[in-house]
Amino acid sequence: MLVVGGGFAGVACAKNLSKYGVEVHLVDRNNYHQFQPLLYQVATAQLGVPDIARPLRDMFTKHTQVRITTADVASVDIDARTITTADGVTLGGDILVLAAGARANFFDTPGAEEHAYPLYCLDDAERLRSRLLGIIDSVDRDAKYLDQGALNFVIVGAGATGVETAGALSELIHDVLPHFYPDLPVHLANVIVVDHGPHVLNGFSDKSQAFTRKELEKVGVEFRFGTGVKEIHPDKVALSDGSEIITRTVVWAGGLQAAGVIGAAGLPQGRGGRIDVEPDLSVTGYPDVYVLGDAANIIDQHGNPLPQLGSVAQQAGTWAAQNIRANIAGHPTTPFTYHDKGIMAMVGRNAAVAELGPDRHELTGPLAFAAWLGVHASLLSGTRQKLGALLTWSTDYVSKKRPTALVDHPDDYRIDWDAED
Amino acid sequence: MLVVGGGFAGVACAKNLSKYGVEVHLVDRNNYHQFQPLLYQVATAQLGVPDIARPLRDMFTKHTQVRITTADVASVDIDARTITTADGVTLGGDILVLAAGARANFFDTPGAEEHAYPLYCLDDAERLRSRLLGIIDSVDRDAKYLDQGALNFVIVGAGATGVETAGALSELIHDVLPHFYPDLPVHLANVIVVDHGPHVLNGFSDKSQAFTRKELEKVGVEFRFGTGVKEIHPDKVALSDGSEIITRTVVWAGGLQAAGVIGAAGLPQGRGGRIDVEPDLSVTGYPDVYVLGDAANIIDQHGNPLPQLGSVAQQAGTWAAQNIRANIAGHPTTPFTYHDKGIMAMVGRNAAVAELGPDRHELTGPLAFAAWLGVHASLLSGTRQKLGALLTWSTDYVSKKRPTALVDHPDDYRIDWDAED
Repeated sequence: MLVVGGGFAGVACAKNLSKYGVEVHLVDRNNYHQFQPLLYQVATAQLGVPDIARPLRDMFTKHTQVRITTADVASVDIDARTITTADGVTLGGDILVLAAGARANFFDTPGAEEHAYPLYCLDDAERLRSRLLGIIDSVDRDAKYLDQGALNFVIVGAGATGVETAGALSELIHDVLPHFYPDLPVHLANVIVVDHGPHVLNGFSDKSQAFTRKELEKVGVEFRFGTGVKEIHPDKVALSDGSEIITRTVVWAGGLQAAGVIGAAGLPQGRGGRIDVEPDLSVTGYPDVYVLGDAANIIDQHGNPLPQLGSVAQQAGTWAAQNIRANIAGHPTTPFTYHDKGIMAMVGRNAAVAELGPDRHELTGPLAFAAWLGVHASLLSGTRQKLGALLTWSTDYVSKKRPTALVDHPDDYRIDWDAED
Repeated sequence: MLVVGGGFAGVACAKNLSKYGVEVHLVDRNNYHQFQPLLYQVATAQLGVPDIARPLRDMFTKHTQVRITTADVASVDIDARTITTADGVTLGGDILVLAAGARANFFDTPGAEEHAYPLYCLDDAERLRSRLLGIIDSVDRDAKYLDQGALNFVIVGAGATGVETAGALSELIHDVLPHFYPDLPVHLANVIVVDHGPHVLNGFSDKSQAFTRKELEKVGVEFRFGTGVKEIHPDKVALSDGSEIITRTVVWAGGLQAAGVIGAAGLPQGRGGRIDVEPDLSVTGYPDVYVLGDAANIIDQHGNPLPQLGSVAQQAGTWAAQNIRANIAGHPTTPFTYHDKGIMAMVGRNAAVAELGPDRHELTGPLAFAAWLGVHASLLSGTRQKLGALLTWSTDYVSKKRPTALVDHPDDYRIDWDAED
């Protein structure tokens, strides 16, 4: 049994299988599980890395049936049910579970790959944090960079990641930077969210959308709806409506596609390059190959694609494990049913939106903020991580400072202000 | 007033000066202060990075007289009292304080620069952590690497850093790895400390030395005294007694020299390339230039050089600030007196040595362990850091796991097992 990917889906699958005595080999490029819904908080120095990362071996100490390997997967051979790692080792299993996640989908936007900051893995978050601190340090050192768009921050995509990043960035700029940089002209900063759709938080209720937009506009976030990004340059962004924004920081929260190695495996791909799966989460024609998590295009019983959420990944992981046990026992598999616990997004200090349960009980404001904190702290894996996150959040909230604003990617910190195309 | 270096000395100096209304410009290559005495704990995953690092701006929010710049210093012009940063900016002040720390002194040992792991800054610690995890993952994957010395860990230097690293590494190997790697033959691991002197912890009492050696030998640490390191190869270490140790991990805890930029400033240099200073901590012939911390060769009133300790650096920083205020006021400066609070070293689980106060009141064992924890937690800068360290330590201690064992330097994690000279 080979599981590729130690995210929500892979971990849930491996845990369930090992609980029932199935030997599992879990492979991930990192030696840790990362809590992806909070990456934007690492990027904006609301949380530290150890608050949201946990060594995979730490998660599986009680699951002795699980063997863990840290390796980059270079290729997948679906027919042989094997993978080959970057250092040339081939691993396989009777059953193959592909849960290697996704990567940013730049939709072939020129310049995006080179200049935009995606926000999908821990390294992305650390890079963006160093970039933001580098930009801010530069302006603090020399105000001339203001004319080069230093304090214009463009976020592509008004979904949960885009909205949460915009809120956290505004809070950083207006609540925190005045403590750290007393002379910085924060009133000149602009956080601009660009989306080709007509509103924030697609999939949320009208009320949640209106609340989110109002709260974010209150803290200075500007929205450009109905507009796509045509091209990203080192010193500006060209929009589809013909306008340009001078900026040195473009955060890409504009969608995902299946991770390269899974996308290249030759399987049928749906929306965003995701792999089409059968209702039981196996791949059409390959009952021994399962695709889970952000890499999978899962259609629910009403014919709608399930969103790329941690809770979908986690439940699919457990469900796939049950089906795999059915495979092994020679029993029929069952179609995946997603138990919808609701959706949430953090908007800013004391403000969040939550729609709880399948009937979408709506909460907004401080109550949703508290619910958001509680749910996320409890979902974090590991005691050190839960308590660490609560500790860091408390410090942030009370002191309005950022104890984790550490520059650890010097290349991103250094801004090449002369860069043009 | 220009202060170069945001370590113990530079921070203490800047804080004192600003308290008395002196404008200070503080320059450091990092945007954070690092608590160097605990770097070995980050390297062995006993603490996480945010536990021991604190943004400099976070430390100076109440000191509005202090301006902070993050920049690499490329050169120092003593006569002009200026520095030039790597990006070509020249900064200066009426008075120049050089507290830029040190770097490993490899004593021209061939191969040390290329293959040894120093432990002087946070990046060193993260690199070593990734290296250790890379080595261990390799052996877990394929036992053949045992024959290539994978589980031989060589530490050069039996001073505090060497001893503390050896103790932490032994604890990692024997108490933690069996949880994370149930099949790893930890009984085959060797932690070998090499020192050209005759005993551990030079400067500590005979009793502390004997206790430390006995405790470390109890957990399997091996000592090679009276032996220097002749050459470091990618796959082995050659010692001066003609023997060789096959190993892929050499930790360099063998001494420091003044940081390159200060060492190259053309000032008189004493032991380890450190800059000779007058009793008032200024440089001979340059009453407007102070050298502090690990970069300074400070001789006490008895003619003995003071050790390179955080407490010496901190006190020298405050003292230099007083002398600088005297300079400004036209008063005479006073010779630095070090108030000796004692010395401590962590040896392992429940074991430490402490010699408190100038009369060296000796403690060993669990009491010293408790004292060590209390002192280090209280010395850490910042509430988040103090509480975070206590939280991580508790988790380590109770669970015998390592929630911060994260690989973040893939280049160090990947071991080139075919590398030879």
